[in-house]
Amino acid sequence: MRYLFFCLVAFVSVSVCGCRGGAHSDDGQIPPDHFHVYPIGKVVKADGKTFIVIDKKYQAGLAGLERHSYITVVYWFDKNDTPEKRAILKVHPRGDKGNPLTGVFATHSPVRPNLIAISHCDVISVKGNVIELKGIDAFDGSPVLDIKGDFFRFYRPGEN
Amino acid sequence: MRYLFFCLVAFVSVSVCGCRGGAHSDDGQIPPDHFHVYPIGKVVKADGKTFIVIDKKYQAGLAGLERHSYITVVYWFDKNDTPEKRAILKVHPRGDKGNPLTGVFATHSPVRPNLIAISHCDVISVKGNVIELKGIDAFDGSPVLDIKGDFFRFYRPGEN
Repeated sequence: MRYLFFCLVAFVSVSVCGCRGGAHSDDGQIPPDHFHVYPIGKVVKADGKTFIVIDKKYQAGLAGLERHSYITVVYWFDKNDTPEKRAILKVHPRGDKGNPLTGVFATHSPVRPNLIAISHCDVISVKGNVIELKGIDAFDGSPVLDIKGDFFRFYRPGEN
Repeated sequence: MRYLFFCLVAFVSVSVCGCRGGAHSDDGQIPPDHFHVYPIGKVVKADGKTFIVIDKKYQAGLAGLERHSYITVVYWFDKNDTPEKRAILKVHPRGDKGNPLTGVFATHSPVRPNLIAISHCDVISVKGNVIELKGIDAFDGSPVLDIKGDFFRFYRPGEN
């Protein structure tokens, strides 16, 4: 149980704000209590089509993406970004009260402490700073945080 | 090209800091330029085993996770959390200079604007606030941002 003791001590010490850093408690440093994520683009749904439009300042990061038929899209459940919603730890899955209350980490609920959403998507095209997708389970306007080009449509653990 | 014009206008307006919110430019509001993510726990590797230890304050969010054999783990590449590394938009994949420079969004590189890492993992057990995994491609001590219980070992787009 050494790890358990080690980690409990580590967590008790997490109380002072630090916005950035790789400091670990085992370095004798106080770990940061939060990190910043910046939208790199957004989901755009228009004329029955689905796009991700990347901010021009990040466009160089798309080089080579045209070789991928599949991507992982990380976006932000921005409609739920309130302290109250981010404090919710149990939900009725799929919003159905017939489903028993379940921990958010056992679900893909859009209500969770960190509002990170993950979708595996089919790419139709990459043109300039615009990626056209077959579809995505995100609202129009959702802030996109990351794109990861995939070579496989199916994921196995450890392939990342 | 209506969407393209719309989005370029939207991005030009992203200049004022807002740390939280679901404001979209099409609401006439300035979208936030960043969001906060908080570690919910950390990766612990000890005695040849791999664990995720969740902060006690988030433990209720694990209820029901014991029914899942597979989880998606979202963690933070904290060792790369410097402004300089987060500004890198092209890398040699797998750190091999023989591989041509490629946009970070076409890769799963640990260097990227938002240091979000995703691993699909096999669960061995869930006990209290400790999840034992078969393994994870993360360093000991990596801050964990989210856990999503999965019913499938393999992912298809749209299953999230």
